[in-house]
Amino acid sequence: MTIDATHDPALQSWVESANSADTDFPVQNLPFGRFRSAAHEEWRIGVAIGDQVLDLRAAGLTDHADMNQLMGLAPNERRALRRSLSDGLRRGSAQEKAWQAALFAASTVELGLPCRIGDYTDFYIGIHHAATVGKLFRPDNPLLPNYKWVPIGYHGRASTILPSGHPFMRPQGQLKAADAAPRLAATQRLDFELEVGLFVGRGNRLGEPIPIASAEEHLFGIALFNDWSARDVQAWEYQPLGPFLSKNFASTVSPWIVTMEALAPYRRPLVRPEGDPQPLPYLDSEANRHAGAIDIELEVRLQSRLMRESGIPAQCISRSNFADAAYWTAAQLIAHHTVNGCALASGDLLGSGTLSGPHPEQAGSLLELTQGGKQPFGLPGGEVRSFLEDGDNVTLIGSCSRAGFRRIGFGRCEATVEPSWR
Amino acid sequence: MTIDATHDPALQSWVESANSADTDFPVQNLPFGRFRSAAHEEWRIGVAIGDQVLDLRAAGLTDHADMNQLMGLAPNERRALRRSLSDGLRRGSAQEKAWQAALFAASTVELGLPCRIGDYTDFYIGIHHAATVGKLFRPDNPLLPNYKWVPIGYHGRASTILPSGHPFMRPQGQLKAADAAPRLAATQRLDFELEVGLFVGRGNRLGEPIPIASAEEHLFGIALFNDWSARDVQAWEYQPLGPFLSKNFASTVSPWIVTMEALAPYRRPLVRPEGDPQPLPYLDSEANRHAGAIDIELEVRLQSRLMRESGIPAQCISRSNFADAAYWTAAQLIAHHTVNGCALASGDLLGSGTLSGPHPEQAGSLLELTQGGKQPFGLPGGEVRSFLEDGDNVTLIGSCSRAGFRRIGFGRCEATVEPSWR
Repeated sequence: MTIDATHDPALQSWVESANSADTDFPVQNLPFGRFRSAAHEEWRIGVAIGDQVLDLRAAGLTDHADMNQLMGLAPNERRALRRSLSDGLRRGSAQEKAWQAALFAASTVELGLPCRIGDYTDFYIGIHHAATVGKLFRPDNPLLPNYKWVPIGYHGRASTILPSGHPFMRPQGQLKAADAAPRLAATQRLDFELEVGLFVGRGNRLGEPIPIASAEEHLFGIALFNDWSARDVQAWEYQPLGPFLSKNFASTVSPWIVTMEALAPYRRPLVRPEGDPQPLPYLDSEANRHAGAIDIELEVRLQSRLMRESGIPAQCISRSNFADAAYWTAAQLIAHHTVNGCALASGDLLGSGTLSGPHPEQAGSLLELTQGGKQPFGLPGGEVRSFLEDGDNVTLIGSCSRAGFRRIGFGRCEATVEPSWR
Repeated sequence: MTIDATHDPALQSWVESANSADTDFPVQNLPFGRFRSAAHEEWRIGVAIGDQVLDLRAAGLTDHADMNQLMGLAPNERRALRRSLSDGLRRGSAQEKAWQAALFAASTVELGLPCRIGDYTDFYIGIHHAATVGKLFRPDNPLLPNYKWVPIGYHGRASTILPSGHPFMRPQGQLKAADAAPRLAATQRLDFELEVGLFVGRGNRLGEPIPIASAEEHLFGIALFNDWSARDVQAWEYQPLGPFLSKNFASTVSPWIVTMEALAPYRRPLVRPEGDPQPLPYLDSEANRHAGAIDIELEVRLQSRLMRESGIPAQCISRSNFADAAYWTAAQLIAHHTVNGCALASGDLLGSGTLSGPHPEQAGSLLELTQGGKQPFGLPGGEVRSFLEDGDNVTLIGSCSRAGFRRIGFGRCEATVEPSWR
């Protein structure tokens, strides 16, 4: 990935809030999403800049409002669009006057799903998560033999992916205690999963695999993703075909897609532990080894209803990092997903799987943090948690930092658990 | 389900081919699909009648061409539409003259996917298939403990569902021999799966389960479905999250959706073997026990390239029946899929899973017919098959018969295997 003038840390914007040290959206970021205002019911393509949203069509940068179409741009067109945005939003730009009219205060608009998600695949590339969860089920054989050869993934449900801020009801399902018949009840082991979501840019045609060398040309960018899970439903239903109702009641995605171009300064070598098998050739490339990983700091915050009502801020319950947690890279996921000829389309979502770090306090789910519920932890205000309670709000945040570069952030991916229906 | 005058076996149509004894599409059937002609590139809603297709909009029965919208009609509106079609197409109808201009010879039009498929779920309700396949993997424990409690299902990929007649290339994937490292190669164990596809009519809102009592109001109808599978890829990749690349390279669906109304005469009691657990209340209803099953005769035909080139007709390699093969009913699948609040949408597809009958020769896959490839069978012309070869064409057909009623059919669900890419 090329680091160019759009990443210059000295760049400032005429949108003053974008120059604040703590904004997620300085002019070096420029993530894409969809927004609408009370006055216009239709979704429009927006770019976050400080505490504002730039309407891309009103700014004259597209002639349509179809985010999926924009995501399908060729890489050189995407880079040209980024340069136009960077040029137009920088301090002293000739566009300032014209683009003022295309700005909306983020606090006044509704942010939706960033695009239409046709198909959603969830991977399982968090190796520490796979090992810890595997240990709960199979103490002597935590990682299955295919794990270091195959980027394990499965299909998820697209219709229940919700934009950040949309609450959901605690799901019901079949629960089975060890010595009792199954029964229908609200889940008692509701969990979050800390993930990132990779959005497909250009698709491919059926029967035409994407080689790893060009895999990143088919990636548009990355958002935060929470794959809510009902662990008790999952334990009873998941064999032999994998999780189903334990996952498809709701997933939450953050509103802004941080582009691969914006992430260029934060690339890292892919580290494979000594002794691990070399990836098969279709999953291996020089570029992928050198800079396939992406350094994204991740954090999970929990705020119970009691904390909210008592004015106690959300509590950080875990910190992790995409690069430390992931055994496979984004490029490897694209190459693997299409090696059988499977067709990807613009706007498709690839979840990473739970991104737990190597240490127990870096776990990306309560299942791991509380060891299957056996070790509850305390919250400020005196409550304890093993799994999520009604009224709990979980917020994922993410950011990229590197010496000599401006910090960029992902915004928030959050939702609150509502009580189940009767 | 109500049997009414539209099922009267004495009804004849002014479309003479619909009165032929061997048509799948007499006036008692009236299945829906999408078609287009060389003159009009856009898909239109059609109804099959004999060897003709009636353009629903041209006949004045809708004011749009959106099949998904039509599928979302309320049940009473759907029944009214069926009555209008039946009245207009019957011999002596006043519509004959006007509707002549809305008829297209089926042989001159292209039949597409019957609707936009948003989400696709594949179930696993063929109990004989589950037991036989389970035995290959776990000889002493073929059916897992959840099987008779949970209608096992998982998500599939919607983007690679192809209309009947569309060939696909043999996929590649990671293959792993017992004593060797995995390698990338074209699958050597390509298989079909004989399924039916249930199409969702009206959807439901997130967090609002569909009770079994009204589940069938949310079903539009049934088509034939072939869930092509690469068994060697599947064996290596499927743990712990289920099949992925072994399935998502292609699935084939037949062009005509036979409506639940058309299927009313062919309903059957649901038979649960003595000693099996009673379904949980959310999966049980009087109506479901009395008439939840549907008597659909199914057949699989295979024709190799050599047979085609030698003029040898396709060979029947298996016969089965939806009602005999399925442990769970369509209504139970809808109730189960939404019991956690999951939102279904018009046009969503629920695959039944492989519908093998109770006897070995009724198997719905080669995996079962050849016992994992160990017992190849012969084809007319002298070839043998354990799994599919390049050039093989697999055709699924289905029909419903009952004394005192007109036989109705499903048309064909077929595709030919092309060689893999290099």
